[in-house]
Amino acid sequence: MHRLPEPVQNLIDAFARLPGIGPKTASRLTFFLLRAPEDLATSLSQALLGIKKDTKLCEVCFNITLKDRPTCEICNSPLRDAQTLCIVEEPLDVLAIEKTAGYNGLYHVLHGVLSPIEGIGPEDLKIKELLIRLESQDFKEVILATNPSMEGDATAMYLHERIAPLNIRVTRLARGLPVGGDLEYADQNTLLRALAGRERLE
Amino acid sequence: MHRLPEPVQNLIDAFARLPGIGPKTASRLTFFLLRAPEDLATSLSQALLGIKKDTKLCEVCFNITLKDRPTCEICNSPLRDAQTLCIVEEPLDVLAIEKTAGYNGLYHVLHGVLSPIEGIGPEDLKIKELLIRLESQDFKEVILATNPSMEGDATAMYLHERIAPLNIRVTRLARGLPVGGDLEYADQNTLLRALAGRERLE
Repeated sequence: MHRLPEPVQNLIDAFARLPGIGPKTASRLTFFLLRAPEDLATSLSQALLGIKKDTKLCEVCFNITLKDRPTCEICNSPLRDAQTLCIVEEPLDVLAIEKTAGYNGLYHVLHGVLSPIEGIGPEDLKIKELLIRLESQDFKEVILATNPSMEGDATAMYLHERIAPLNIRVTRLARGLPVGGDLEYADQNTLLRALAGRERLE
Repeated sequence: MHRLPEPVQNLIDAFARLPGIGPKTASRLTFFLLRAPEDLATSLSQALLGIKKDTKLCEVCFNITLKDRPTCEICNSPLRDAQTLCIVEEPLDVLAIEKTAGYNGLYHVLHGVLSPIEGIGPEDLKIKELLIRLESQDFKEVILATNPSMEGDATAMYLHERIAPLNIRVTRLARGLPVGGDLEYADQNTLLRALAGRERLE
């Protein structure tokens, strides 16, 4: 059978290593780029090098930031509430919370969750750095904003135990019915949480 | 609101210019690459440059081939039937037909279809080159394998008219029910074609 030219197959293989991109999508993207004006493949190529060359993790919160500064925009901002710390799993979670415009404190990015199955323990996450940060700065509240998953909950429990002795208020994001959702279609666990956490109207 | 570091936003924007990749997928891919080992972003970056640097169109059939040879693997192969020519819209169509292992002739890639709405006329496709090829070589059959769409059919009709005077047998791919499909769910036009093209069992 006819084989594709090596450079074409290489690009298909490289695309197919990305999450959510199967072999069909990978070849569709490749053939699109073969037809597209040259600057599209080139600018994507350069942007790919750029994220590795020009970014790094913030030395304080471990969010992604520019390589030429030690700390990120949020950590540097005098407008943020420096006594509230929100702990998230990934940099994308910071973006999601920032988009709500409902939070004005600082962040700490763990870069993962505890997962005994995958062999990820506390030493693989930015937990040591978190505890040092909590001890050396004056925080009033720590919000545990890990995902509402088994691993996320276990990580939150673990962090709660470690933070409790420090005399800082520890909270976590509310569980309940998603806004715009339909009670009828809510899964059992969500509905159970929504019942247990019911709020009194006054 | 917090803005992403420029290199990160650049990569999201570059991904989002690809077909079928919206802003959400683009940022998911970007944050995946930020966490992935460096060689993944780098190898994708190099593969992107490679398709532009190391490939070109075959000088005979206009399929994609390596830059260092004038013609492609299929055109060069002494094992292919050089008297049958299959005309397709895109290089991906060559791949699809090759995968069937049911065709052993040569190809001609038009690089598009006639589309008056988008201003694409015969001079924008590899039609002049096709006619020269048909006149200078000895073909017994030309298979019109454009897509079964309005533009694909119109292009096939146009090509048929142009090829007819050359005394070459012109055929096109059969229309009918897709294999594994369900008669009940076939659209009206497909069913009509399947009826009109019914085959006698002997």
